[in-house]
Amino acid sequence: MSSDPAARAGALLEIDLGAIVSNWRLLAERAAPAQCAAVVKANAYGLGAAPVTRALAAAGCRLFFVATLDEGIALRAALGPEPEIAVFNGPLPGTAAEFAAHRLIPVLNEPGQITAWTGQKASPAILHVDTGMSRLGLSTREFTGFADELPKTGIVWRAIISHLACADTPDHALNEQQRARFAAATHRMPGVPASLAASSGIFLGPAYHFDFARPGAALYGVNPQPGRPNPMRQVVRLSGKILQVREIDRGESVGYGAAHVMQKPGRVATVAVGYADGWLRSLSHRGCGYIGGKRIPLLGRVSMDLVTFDVSAIDAAQARPGASIELLGEHYGVDDAAADAGTIGYEILTALGSRFHRIYRDPTATPLPE
Amino acid sequence: MSSDPAARAGALLEIDLGAIVSNWRLLAERAAPAQCAAVVKANAYGLGAAPVTRALAAAGCRLFFVATLDEGIALRAALGPEPEIAVFNGPLPGTAAEFAAHRLIPVLNEPGQITAWTGQKASPAILHVDTGMSRLGLSTREFTGFADELPKTGIVWRAIISHLACADTPDHALNEQQRARFAAATHRMPGVPASLAASSGIFLGPAYHFDFARPGAALYGVNPQPGRPNPMRQVVRLSGKILQVREIDRGESVGYGAAHVMQKPGRVATVAVGYADGWLRSLSHRGCGYIGGKRIPLLGRVSMDLVTFDVSAIDAAQARPGASIELLGEHYGVDDAAADAGTIGYEILTALGSRFHRIYRDPTATPLPE
Repeated sequence: MSSDPAARAGALLEIDLGAIVSNWRLLAERAAPAQCAAVVKANAYGLGAAPVTRALAAAGCRLFFVATLDEGIALRAALGPEPEIAVFNGPLPGTAAEFAAHRLIPVLNEPGQITAWTGQKASPAILHVDTGMSRLGLSTREFTGFADELPKTGIVWRAIISHLACADTPDHALNEQQRARFAAATHRMPGVPASLAASSGIFLGPAYHFDFARPGAALYGVNPQPGRPNPMRQVVRLSGKILQVREIDRGESVGYGAAHVMQKPGRVATVAVGYADGWLRSLSHRGCGYIGGKRIPLLGRVSMDLVTFDVSAIDAAQARPGASIELLGEHYGVDDAAADAGTIGYEILTALGSRFHRIYRDPTATPLPE
Repeated sequence: MSSDPAARAGALLEIDLGAIVSNWRLLAERAAPAQCAAVVKANAYGLGAAPVTRALAAAGCRLFFVATLDEGIALRAALGPEPEIAVFNGPLPGTAAEFAAHRLIPVLNEPGQITAWTGQKASPAILHVDTGMSRLGLSTREFTGFADELPKTGIVWRAIISHLACADTPDHALNEQQRARFAAATHRMPGVPASLAASSGIFLGPAYHFDFARPGAALYGVNPQPGRPNPMRQVVRLSGKILQVREIDRGESVGYGAAHVMQKPGRVATVAVGYADGWLRSLSHRGCGYIGGKRIPLLGRVSMDLVTFDVSAIDAAQARPGASIELLGEHYGVDDAAADAGTIGYEILTALGSRFHRIYRDPTATPLPE
C-alpha cells in the first residue's frame, strides 16, 4: 500500500526556499545601508510562515512582520524566542496582554491601540503613521496631536512606519508626497528607526529606504517593478496531475454551461486542480499550462476540483493519466497567471490551496541521513 | 491574559449546521422517492467536512462524496467505519490499494482506473459515464466498448453516475440530451443504482432523479435555481472586525493605487479581512457590508489582510474599533457576494479562509455540561 503523499495528491507545490533567501539578499543589497526585515504575513503569502521564516532567519534576517495576533503566536511557537516578530494589525480590544506574553511587537495604528499598549510597561511597539494610504495608521492630525505625548507613554518605540499606496507606479505623485510626510513625522521621533518601503518601495531609490525596508511580495517572486524585467527569482512551481484524457469531436462542448465548444476534433486533459485549490475561476477560458515546454490552453470554465486543457498538440505519451502539467513555473509565473486572472501575483500566491502536496527545496539545509 | 480565540481573530465565521441539515432534508424531499446523498468535497465547500458530515449522518444521510483520496482518508478517520464515502477523482496511478484500505469507494472515470480497480477483488466502485460535460467519465464510445465486459471485472458496481453541465439553466437543450444518454447507459447496467442530479438537477424534475441525488452547493445555501427565489436557508455568517475608523477629507484617496478618491468628507472603517482570507480582490470597489442592517459600500481595493468601508452614514458608536461588520449573512448572502465579485457562490464558499475564528451552530447537538 502506497503511503506516498506525492502519489496521492492531485498536485504538487514546490517552494524554493533558496530562491526566497536569494531574493531577500538581493533586496537587502538594494536597500543597504538600510537594514532589511521580511514580511511573512498571510502564512508567508501562502507559502508557509514557519519554513520561510526559518530560512530567512538563517540568512540573517532579524525582524519579521505578520498581520494578525494568531499568526504571531503561531510563528513565535515555531521559531522559539529569538527573532523579533511584529504584528501589523495591532491589538484588537482585549488582546494587548497576549502580545506581551508571546513577545510580539504590536504595530499601533490608532489612538485606542496606543492607549491599550500604554499599560504594557516598557514593552516595545511600532508606531504606524498614515501618509496617504488611508487604511491603517495615525492620521497627520492625530499624530500632530499625539507627538509630544508619545515619549511620555512609557512605550519603547521600536520603530515608526508608514506604507506607500502607489510604490509600483514610480511616477505617481503620491509617492513623493508620502515620502515627505513620513520624513516630517520621523523628525518628531528622533532616534527611532524608520521604515517606509515594502518590495516596490525599495526600487524607488535611497530616499525611500530610511532605516529599514520590509519587503514581502518580491521575496516570493512577484515582480516589484511591473512592466519592467523581473529581478526576482521564481519561487513556486505548481504541477497538476492529469486524471483523464479524452478525444472530443468538433462541435462538442467542454465543462459547465457548455461554455467551450470545440472548433475541431481534439484531445482534452482533465487535471485535478480547481478553484477550491485557489486556481481562480477567473482563469476560465484564459489561463494555460505547459507540458514539456509547450503551451496548452485552458479550455472552458475552471470547476471546483478540476480544470481542462487542450492537449491536442501534445504527444499522447506525455499527456496521459498520472502525467503532470506545469501550472506555475519557469514558463508561466505568478504574475502571468495573475494577468490572465485579472488580479495581481499576490492573490495567486495567497489563494494557493491546502490540497496540494507541498515540497520545500532548501539547498542550504543539511541533507537528512539516508 | 485573554485566550479567547474569538477576541483574537479578525473575523468570525459562523456555520449553521442546523441550516445545512434543513437544506438536506428539503432536497431529499424534492428528490424522493429517490435517495439523497451529500457532496462534502473541498472540505464541505470550505465549511468543514467532518462537522458537516457528522451532522448530515445524524440526519440520516448514508453516502458522502469527496473529490480526492486525501479528503477521503481524512473523512474516514473523522467518521469511523460507518457511512459510505465515495471519491470523485478516482484512483491516481499507484493509489488503488489505499482506497480499499480506507474503505473508500472510487468513482472510476476512465479505462485505466477500471483496470487498476479490477485488481481489488470484490471491492465496490462507482462508474462515471460522461454524457456531455467532457470532463471526467467514460465517453459513450468507451462505455459502449466496455459495457459487456463490466460484469466480468469482478467489481461490485455500487452505482453508475453522470454529471450535468447546464442544470442551473433549465431550458438548456443539453439537459435533456444528457438525461437521455444517461438513461440509455443505465439500461446496460441493470440493478445498479443510478445518479445524475446534483443540487440544480434536483429541480429539473423527477425524470432527472433516478435512484439517488447528490447535492452539494445547495446544502450550503447557494441558490440551485439562479434567477428565482432561493429555497435554501443561508448557512454562513461572516463578521469582520473594525481595526480603525478614520475621518477622511474630500479629495483624499483610499487604499492601493489611490484608486478610490473621496467625493466628500467621510469616515472610513478598516476591517481585518482581505483577499488572503478569500475576500476576493475582484470585490474591490463593488462589494459591501452591513452594520445594524444598513448597507455600507466597500471602498477602494481589497488588500491582502484588510478591506475598507464607507461608514459615514453609521453612528460612531456602532462603527468603532472592535465592532463588527457583517460581510456575509442575512443581508448579503454568498450569491450576492458572488455577483459583485463576478463569480459564483461556490467560489465564495471555497475561498473562505483559515484565519477566521469558526463557530459551528448545531441546535440538535446535546449541550455540553457547564
